[in-house]
Amino acid sequence: MKPTVYHIPVCPFCQRLEILLSLKGRRDAVDFRVVDVTRPRPEWLLEKTRGTTSLPILEIDGGRIVKESLVILQYLDDLFPERPVAQREPYRRAVENMLTRMEAEFCARGYAWVMNQDPGRRAAFEEAVLERYGELNDFLLEHSPSDPFLFEAFGWAETVFTPLFARFWFLEYYEDFRLPAGPRYTRVRRWVDACLAHPAAQQATKEEIVKVYYDYAKGAGNGALLPGRRRSSFTLEPDWRARPWPPRDKYAHSATDRELGL
Amino acid sequence: MKPTVYHIPVCPFCQRLEILLSLKGRRDAVDFRVVDVTRPRPEWLLEKTRGTTSLPILEIDGGRIVKESLVILQYLDDLFPERPVAQREPYRRAVENMLTRMEAEFCARGYAWVMNQDPGRRAAFEEAVLERYGELNDFLLEHSPSDPFLFEAFGWAETVFTPLFARFWFLEYYEDFRLPAGPRYTRVRRWVDACLAHPAAQQATKEEIVKVYYDYAKGAGNGALLPGRRRSSFTLEPDWRARPWPPRDKYAHSATDRELGL
Repeated sequence: MKPTVYHIPVCPFCQRLEILLSLKGRRDAVDFRVVDVTRPRPEWLLEKTRGTTSLPILEIDGGRIVKESLVILQYLDDLFPERPVAQREPYRRAVENMLTRMEAEFCARGYAWVMNQDPGRRAAFEEAVLERYGELNDFLLEHSPSDPFLFEAFGWAETVFTPLFARFWFLEYYEDFRLPAGPRYTRVRRWVDACLAHPAAQQATKEEIVKVYYDYAKGAGNGALLPGRRRSSFTLEPDWRARPWPPRDKYAHSATDRELGL
Repeated sequence: MKPTVYHIPVCPFCQRLEILLSLKGRRDAVDFRVVDVTRPRPEWLLEKTRGTTSLPILEIDGGRIVKESLVILQYLDDLFPERPVAQREPYRRAVENMLTRMEAEFCARGYAWVMNQDPGRRAAFEEAVLERYGELNDFLLEHSPSDPFLFEAFGWAETVFTPLFARFWFLEYYEDFRLPAGPRYTRVRRWVDACLAHPAAQQATKEEIVKVYYDYAKGAGNGALLPGRRRSSFTLEPDWRARPWPPRDKYAHSATDRELGL
């Protein structure tokens, strides 16, 4: 049996795994199966996850389950040791591990902002997100002032962060967020741009992310249903390509299923 | 220059590094320097940490700094590759990494409880801590039902958790916490007992932890000074050996410097 990843649609944590495998030229070595999170979890999946609903999970031989995207990422990097993505030299590895430790808070701040429903709190959410970008800027200036990437090439840290940079297109669309011009964010902006342009990291487009994450922008995560709606924007049908771009003004307007093409 | 760790007294994150080095027979390869957290950070240290106050940090050749205990732990395991502590086989490594992912919440729950000052909330704090022990029990039952340790010997996961099990002696002393008898905690109790008994993990005694952490039990962390007190229990002088055992009843009584032998 091929190792199989079960994940929610357009999941950033799952995209990390796809990027890593692409960098190794082994994308086909793992099956990826989307779980419809707008329906109750099927019994066969709950058995695999032992009752928890967190995704992605990786299933390997003998029904063994690996959880947590960074743990799965390391597992796949070890399982296919040719073209290692993680650094091998101890100090370089420590540097990318320190950067990796910043991903949880970076992710949490961006998701908290997109889910915010109180226009009076927008400025505070923006500030918290900018603080995290500023931290990344400082870190890169210290450890890699000139390269676009942390080291010579797109590697482990880029694999971890790029799916988040792409998800944050929902902030650009629904919150009109842009990294401000000026020296505070120059280094991190170069990094973000280089990451998003890399050929191994093209699994999700801005259009797909903006459409699928509409319900997050209205405060409903993980396929939960909003009042007055019959379908989640996370539904697998109709396909996102067949839907119109959602209205951008999340604070003043709640789109209907019909407006969203659902 | 020898790699040098700067840390606060009786710090569990620093003890992880000492355990790892002891397992490798390389305890002498790294210098450990205690920082007096009851005084303002000295300038030379703030320069090393670039203004942050988090400890421990590791300084290596050229003034390079590695932060975050788990990152330092991996660095030292890579730097001294003989007798590796982390698993090398990809799936076993993933298993210990999944267990390691549970340490942050485990630590946070225990520290939150010891710092609680409201007797009405004790039951809720205890429940949250027990829930974490229950999770560890489940994990061990699934991946290692019979051995005392996760694998054949005291390894990475034990290095990560043992200093926390030892710190939680402050819950035993100040909150009268015990793992309840009965099957829910049988497996994790065997693990905790085997971890605490291991010869590589004897850096801190119950007496030292209970005395030094008195101020945590009264709600003051990291060397902060409590009302009416002139010295923190984290002070380096007088030495903890010269002090009496603190009063156990944290909710009804606030000990003076004199009662604490400070």
